[in-house]
Amino acid sequence: MFVLDVLNLIIMGIDPGLAILGYGLIEMKGNKFVLLHSGAIITQSNISMPDRLSCIYDGLNSLLEEYNPDAYAIEELFFNKNIKTALTVGHARGVAILAASNHKIPIYEYTPLQVKQAIVGYGRAEKKQMQQMVKLLLGLDQMPKPDDVADALAVAICHGNSSRFSKLFRL
Amino acid sequence: MFVLDVLNLIIMGIDPGLAILGYGLIEMKGNKFVLLHSGAIITQSNISMPDRLSCIYDGLNSLLEEYNPDAYAIEELFFNKNIKTALTVGHARGVAILAASNHKIPIYEYTPLQVKQAIVGYGRAEKKQMQQMVKLLLGLDQMPKPDDVADALAVAICHGNSSRFSKLFRL
Repeated sequence: MFVLDVLNLIIMGIDPGLAILGYGLIEMKGNKFVLLHSGAIITQSNISMPDRLSCIYDGLNSLLEEYNPDAYAIEELFFNKNIKTALTVGHARGVAILAASNHKIPIYEYTPLQVKQAIVGYGRAEKKQMQQMVKLLLGLDQMPKPDDVADALAVAICHGNSSRFSKLFRL
Repeated sequence: MFVLDVLNLIIMGIDPGLAILGYGLIEMKGNKFVLLHSGAIITQSNISMPDRLSCIYDGLNSLLEEYNPDAYAIEELFFNKNIKTALTVGHARGVAILAASNHKIPIYEYTPLQVKQAIVGYGRAEKKQMQQMVKLLLGLDQMPKPDDVADALAVAICHGNSSRFSKLFRL
């Protein structure tokens, strides 16, 4: 008898940011993806940095406890000019990594290029094409909004596709 | 009768970093400073980013629980070229802020310029002068090592001095 090894994973994708942190929880059943839950943690700029970071941390902790994902996929960030922005987003991304690390969930990171290649098939795909593919792959009626949610779902799908192959980009 | 209001504060100073995070705990009794404890959380580059961040977070949590400081003073960071470094240090600094935020401890930030002005009296002071002043103000026999520990103590003293005046740089 020949048994196909069907992967069944819950994956949480993260598009890190301080003002808007997008998240997407999907289940991969074999080679199909099902949306479990998605959204964004939004923190206003008029509240203090410590409160914004606590808000992100608490929000992610609740989601991690509720869904207990098998994997956590987070976008690697690139900035080409604004150092102040890099530092600020770094704060949020550090807290997002810590939340999963404290839950002992394996964390993987993917560059925007890797995400595009995994979803659309080539690295120069436009945002609109990416979002269309995310919608198609998850069988959604509409594209999730804001863009950060679509990006978080894309990185989760990217991890799902990558986990079929050997080389994983574990952080 | 005239009673002088003598401040008595436990202050934790932080020089944030991923590889070496310096910390210093001091008590301010009136206008005197006493060293309670200082050290550095060192994480090796061969362990994963999530583990390094968890290590920093756990280490700071232990110190916060043990000393329960009244204030947490952290250096504001400036980078003039390396964006990748800014992002990485941002991760560690975000986690360091989160630890204090979760303990509901008021957090204050100071630029290197403010720290130098508070300790030596002018903003172009050299590192060596700063360290000598920290040693003097805390009545130490030797300068704490590594530099990150001296810097953490300096930012704690800076907060102590600032807290006598009205304008505090609460994050």
